[in-house]
Amino acid sequence: MTKKKKNAKKPAPERRASEEKATRQEEAAAAKPKPGKKGSVALETAESMARKQREISVSEFFLKNRHLLGFDSPRRALMTTVKEAVDNALDACEEAGHLPEISVDIAQTAENRFRVTVTDNGPGIVRSQIPKVFAKLLYGSKFHRLRMSRGQQGIGISAAGMYGQLTTGTSTHILSRSRNQKMAHDIAVQIDTKANTPTIISDDERAWCPEFFPTQPDGKPGKPISYAHGTSVSIEMEATYVRGRLSVDEYLKQCAIVNPHLQLHYRVRLMRSDDKDEKGPKTLPADETTPWISYFRGVNEMPPPTREIKPHPHGVELGMLMAMLKDTNSRTLQGALSQDFSRVSSKTAKEICERAKLYPNARPARIAHQESEALYKAINETSLMRPPTDCLAPIGEEQIVSGLKKEIQADFYTAKTRNPAVYRGNPFQIEAGLAYAKPGENEDLNAEEPVRLMRFANRVPLLAMSGACAMTKSTTGVNWKAYGLSQPRGSLPFGPMVVMIHIASVWVPFTSESKEAIAHYPEIMREITFALQDCGRQLSHYLSRKRRADEAARKRNFIELYIPHLALGLKEILDLNDRQEKTVVNKLGGMLERTHLDV
Amino acid sequence: MTKKKKNAKKPAPERRASEEKATRQEEAAAAKPKPGKKGSVALETAESMARKQREISVSEFFLKNRHLLGFDSPRRALMTTVKEAVDNALDACEEAGHLPEISVDIAQTAENRFRVTVTDNGPGIVRSQIPKVFAKLLYGSKFHRLRMSRGQQGIGISAAGMYGQLTTGTSTHILSRSRNQKMAHDIAVQIDTKANTPTIISDDERAWCPEFFPTQPDGKPGKPISYAHGTSVSIEMEATYVRGRLSVDEYLKQCAIVNPHLQLHYRVRLMRSDDKDEKGPKTLPADETTPWISYFRGVNEMPPPTREIKPHPHGVELGMLMAMLKDTNSRTLQGALSQDFSRVSSKTAKEICERAKLYPNARPARIAHQESEALYKAINETSLMRPPTDCLAPIGEEQIVSGLKKEIQADFYTAKTRNPAVYRGNPFQIEAGLAYAKPGENEDLNAEEPVRLMRFANRVPLLAMSGACAMTKSTTGVNWKAYGLSQPRGSLPFGPMVVMIHIASVWVPFTSESKEAIAHYPEIMREITFALQDCGRQLSHYLSRKRRADEAARKRNFIELYIPHLALGLKEILDLNDRQEKTVVNKLGGMLERTHLDV
Repeated sequence: MTKKKKNAKKPAPERRASEEKATRQEEAAAAKPKPGKKGSVALETAESMARKQREISVSEFFLKNRHLLGFDSPRRALMTTVKEAVDNALDACEEAGHLPEISVDIAQTAENRFRVTVTDNGPGIVRSQIPKVFAKLLYGSKFHRLRMSRGQQGIGISAAGMYGQLTTGTSTHILSRSRNQKMAHDIAVQIDTKANTPTIISDDERAWCPEFFPTQPDGKPGKPISYAHGTSVSIEMEATYVRGRLSVDEYLKQCAIVNPHLQLHYRVRLMRSDDKDEKGPKTLPADETTPWISYFRGVNEMPPPTREIKPHPHGVELGMLMAMLKDTNSRTLQGALSQDFSRVSSKTAKEICERAKLYPNARPARIAHQESEALYKAINETSLMRPPTDCLAPIGEEQIVSGLKKEIQADFYTAKTRNPAVYRGNPFQIEAGLAYAKPGENEDLNAEEPVRLMRFANRVPLLAMSGACAMTKSTTGVNWKAYGLSQPRGSLPFGPMVVMIHIASVWVPFTSESKEAIAHYPEIMREITFALQDCGRQLSHYLSRKRRADEAARKRNFIELYIPHLALGLKEILDLNDRQEKTVVNKLGGMLERTHLDV
Repeated sequence: MTKKKKNAKKPAPERRASEEKATRQEEAAAAKPKPGKKGSVALETAESMARKQREISVSEFFLKNRHLLGFDSPRRALMTTVKEAVDNALDACEEAGHLPEISVDIAQTAENRFRVTVTDNGPGIVRSQIPKVFAKLLYGSKFHRLRMSRGQQGIGISAAGMYGQLTTGTSTHILSRSRNQKMAHDIAVQIDTKANTPTIISDDERAWCPEFFPTQPDGKPGKPISYAHGTSVSIEMEATYVRGRLSVDEYLKQCAIVNPHLQLHYRVRLMRSDDKDEKGPKTLPADETTPWISYFRGVNEMPPPTREIKPHPHGVELGMLMAMLKDTNSRTLQGALSQDFSRVSSKTAKEICERAKLYPNARPARIAHQESEALYKAINETSLMRPPTDCLAPIGEEQIVSGLKKEIQADFYTAKTRNPAVYRGNPFQIEAGLAYAKPGENEDLNAEEPVRLMRFANRVPLLAMSGACAMTKSTTGVNWKAYGLSQPRGSLPFGPMVVMIHIASVWVPFTSESKEAIAHYPEIMREITFALQDCGRQLSHYLSRKRRADEAARKRNFIELYIPHLALGLKEILDLNDRQEKTVVNKLGGMLERTHLDV
């Protein structure tokens, strides 16, 4: 006690030094080094190492590596959470055939804390699935199928909940009601990160209809809209809210552009003080007083529905083929080939068997063990139709141009939708669009700066990690000088222009689990390049037309300058009067008007 | 049958068209659409969706996303496999205190197929652990501890085996013998990707000592070296072998530079034909006839051993704190705080409890539920010592400079090792080095091109994904013009220079599971910037010294040019003879020699 007092009297730095020494000693004593050759760190043997080997749960892994999921900073955490929730809502609405109506409500709860609530009019989720869908990583319906959708991994929304839980200790709250339920489920879950399993914190039923609050075009609040079914998810987390290119605002704006069938209501409520100088205690403004920003539906039709496909034989590796033959429900090789793969009719299957010198009636599991290499070779030597493409729903050239027109004020627009192509057996389709403003016409687009690149995958805007994306790489790889733009070596072209690229695929290969950048598959980069070159050629026509027109105007101005002098000369030579001189000027001017100057 | 013959006679394209129609019809029939509103794609309900929800095993996930693990192209697959195997071998040798001796044998087995065999003199692996270590993702000893090591995730080598299995259907073969075993285990495993569990294909014992084959400096084969313990892993896979900046060769070369205590033997055996014109059937050259490339040990001492640390309280989030209190072995809050965290003595723990108004004897599990926020606040308000740094083993300035001197022929070298810093509670340390060649002196370094950046993390060279790395971003962010280099906006500086950056940390935050790029944590980027600026200032001194010297030489040449004319003038004025004129020239030259020209 005496010592403590003595310490307390010492000036701060010294006190800390003596305490540091004590801490160090205590730690050294706790470490208790085992005998070993080198210093005090124990050396390992095969046996001591074996005792330390442990399984790592996937949730522990991603908790420690949460930057892989897009939770590396409080700012990005907010964006990723909104993105995952909105993507899920859109997918659910589209699969159930409901025109999506979604609200995003962001409310500040403390200095660095926000609550994100996303509500949709989707089909709802049955009670038994709610805990796993929202509090188990790698769980979902989209991973095991080949069909175009926004979500594909079964990680996103559970990861957002896990991040909220990690930073604030709170639970993910879900409200969900399906069409034939009277009451909604009101469930709170957390994730047991050691086991990657959901823990149910509370489980109630209550009356609830998803409600949306549109703002009328004149800014006044409209009548609230409510639906008989839907889901609402609410997560509180450490986050910061900022505006700008990588913000929630920008994400939702771009989301509305590429999803014209989406109706979206959005608001951010920041804590503020009632005093004018913001000195008093800060509180959240009342619910009713904060207006919503509404993005209204542009079209009343859903995008064309997409079909699930089976894997294409030419994209299947030997090891995968063996696994598929082992697991097939078919009793014969011929049956397995024609039922489990796309583009293999029973006739083609027979042809493949013959080529591989195998009996069409052989047991698939036996082939998997013994003759799979011959079969694999035969499959790859057989010419097959390309994979079906009704699994893809591109945006379309017209929609891209009208989306760009709505968003970007410019002088020239063009778009190109490529035919579907294939990487590793997966069909994909690339679309690109350009909007070019006359220099000075659009103050957001500076002619002296790199063009603005907007990236989309399966109708989801990609904002972060632009540098790691195949779309950026392909855009810098195109020779834009050939189309009339300046371009420093290895850089994006410069100019008052927006470039938009979209990939639609049954499996988009992202460079990380946060799904913000496309991996550098050569097939994909080639298609992007072709789409951009097509747009570039259109741009080049526009620019050279524009240049010709500018040149003609310049020449005309030049000649116009001389007309009075010419008239004066004629007046002196021919001894004309002033009226006649004026007539000459007018006539020459008229001639110039009529002439299409050939530049 | 008749129809088939008829078809067979048709020219190929037509035949395919009719077949395509049949395939399409067959597929349409198989799809059997359920009734739904939109077209033929069935609409989902909450119930139908629930039936499709499934768990996704982590191995299925990474099989489909194998570009995340560094297996996106056959070329990169070979590099990633060698990297993962060598990293594991180095970690095992160092932890057991054996000076590492490693061989890497790459043999072509078919057109696009290679077998990679990596053998070490490490402590070996006990039998029961071998299947899980080599055929189960997320399994290992390094994830759950905080200590600097090359591996950290428990994914790498199993992922390499999984890729081999996927592309060739073969197993991973392991030979391992620990010090007190007479025979070695000879085990072949595959991974059951649906369950992420190992399947043992064969399990034998046989006599084996790991053997290494050095090449003497004169190029002749030396005596083989053998050890009583070690591990050898062999994986066959689809791959291509190329040389260059992103090759296995480059990886191993850089590996030897930052691990001077490593002795490495390496060879690649490519299939070739016996004919001179390579027309005959290709075979693999005999084992004995192919020499090894040996990198000999530079030092006979191990790097300083690193200690495992506990998490630092200031890097622990609220949710993590709650989980730790729930799981602690301590019975009291004070005990839990001082035993489970670093830099918390029992006295500090008591101080924290007092600040949070909690009893030091409270049950930790109760606190986790009810008063964790108060505790969290109190922890973050208490000033604590920074995390211990004996968990880090930087390379050191001297070693970096000598490594650079060994590898890069240049005129100026410098290096800087920063003091340890902390991101998210994890200690880390940044080192940087420069090697600047006189323009034209080193033909690999072009003065008109961006500088060459060499990146390392925990003594592992990072080759791929340079664009996504915080090291690249920080290097472009430094204002190199201030240090005398040219630098286009937003680009690396230009010049005949190599920049080397190393991060040492108990947990390196990589941007993807392939561990090739560092995530953009601001604390890390700041430290890199400071280290580079320090090196930049040294460079600037060197460059301005060099510039002054060049300038002086230029002036001297200029003055020398005038000495004869001066002498001639003096001769005429003073009427000197030729001998006297010569003396004047010599004397003036001597004066110039002695004078340090003040530029």
